[in-house]
Amino acid sequence: MSFSPLIRQLIDALRILPGVGQKTAQRMALQMLERDRSGGLRLAQALTRAMEEVGYCRQCRTLSEDELCPQCADPRRDDSLLCIVQSPVDVFAVEQTGFRGRYFVLKGHLSPLDGLGPEAIGIPELLVRVAEGQFSEAILATNPTVEGEATAHYIAQLLIPKGLTLSRIAHGVPLGGELDLVDGGTLAHAFAGRKTITL
Amino acid sequence: MSFSPLIRQLIDALRILPGVGQKTAQRMALQMLERDRSGGLRLAQALTRAMEEVGYCRQCRTLSEDELCPQCADPRRDDSLLCIVQSPVDVFAVEQTGFRGRYFVLKGHLSPLDGLGPEAIGIPELLVRVAEGQFSEAILATNPTVEGEATAHYIAQLLIPKGLTLSRIAHGVPLGGELDLVDGGTLAHAFAGRKTITL
Ligand SMILES: [Zn+2]
Ligand SMILES: [Zn+2]
Repeated sequence: MSFSPLIRQLIDALRILPGVGQKTAQRMALQMLERDRSGGLRLAQALTRAMEEVGYCRQCRTLSEDELCPQCADPRRDDSLLCIVQSPVDVFAVEQTGFRGRYFVLKGHLSPLDGLGPEAIGIPELLVRVAEGQFSEAILATNPTVEGEATAHYIAQLLIPKGLTLSRIAHGVPLGGELDLVDGGTLAHAFAGRKTITL
Repeated sequence: MSFSPLIRQLIDALRILPGVGQKTAQRMALQMLERDRSGGLRLAQALTRAMEEVGYCRQCRTLSEDELCPQCADPRRDDSLLCIVQSPVDVFAVEQTGFRGRYFVLKGHLSPLDGLGPEAIGIPELLVRVAEGQFSEAILATNPTVEGEATAHYIAQLLIPKGLTLSRIAHGVPLGGELDLVDGGTLAHAFAGRKTITL
């Protein structure tokens, strides 16, 4: 009872958002209805367009509605540097450090127990990208977790034999954390302090 | 840079939600795009329908797409008891206490400094509702804030001369708080401990 059907449906639908429970969803729904219906309609339109039109950049595999994302389409970036991350949100985090090379976005990290091997996370596409590019260095910016470290190690073993210098972001990134929750200054420091990986 | 235009628009649109800043909006947008596009589309549809179709119950003035909200349409509720709240979300909170009378929903509280007098918050509609009903008691469940108390006092002065018993929820509601953030048990206690108001 208590809420009409359309309001109940809106509250239920809002709960798909990460971190949004029943109480928060109620406040969101009622606040939009009482104070900002045009904002609610704009949000509906933005959701529809994004969910229907956003695909993946054909070069770096980040989320993008254009064939090439803004980073890949920019002719002024450094084509000798490749930064490998495990999620599109990490591209945003790394951009904050001032990095202006190219990216490759994995689909998460290796997770053999969940059946996620190299193919599932996009390693074949990474190898194609490296073969087509002119990179001299690849920076492994996977998350500083056990799985992220294992994924970085796996990629290093594939790319070092191809003549690339491989480095891993290191200092300042708290162990066990998630990259996009790290503040820009810390991450910039981790970039500056990156270490070359040898086999 | 860094996000494509449609993703940027989605992130901006999500920031109209209460409590959602830039980082949270980014996580919400990318998580939907990566993991739950059908959920994102359902949310868009629920938003559109709610923003376009939800109006106000003609009897209690809460948000509802039907002419009568679920509480007003229910024939089994107690027609002698009226609970007066200052926002639709409070109807939900009061329902949790087991209250099964009728409601009237004000548009906030009196706020003379902001130019919000009796007409702005729906006092004329409240008087019509009381005149049409057969209430013997009205429970003033405005927020336990200075403004909520002042609004309750103002309403008591209008309704006591009409022969109603006026009561104010009292015990257990923390002063300065907002009603819908109070847990159900505390609010139930506040209802049981309500005090009759005399002039
Ligand atoms: Zn790209
Ligand atoms: Zn109603």
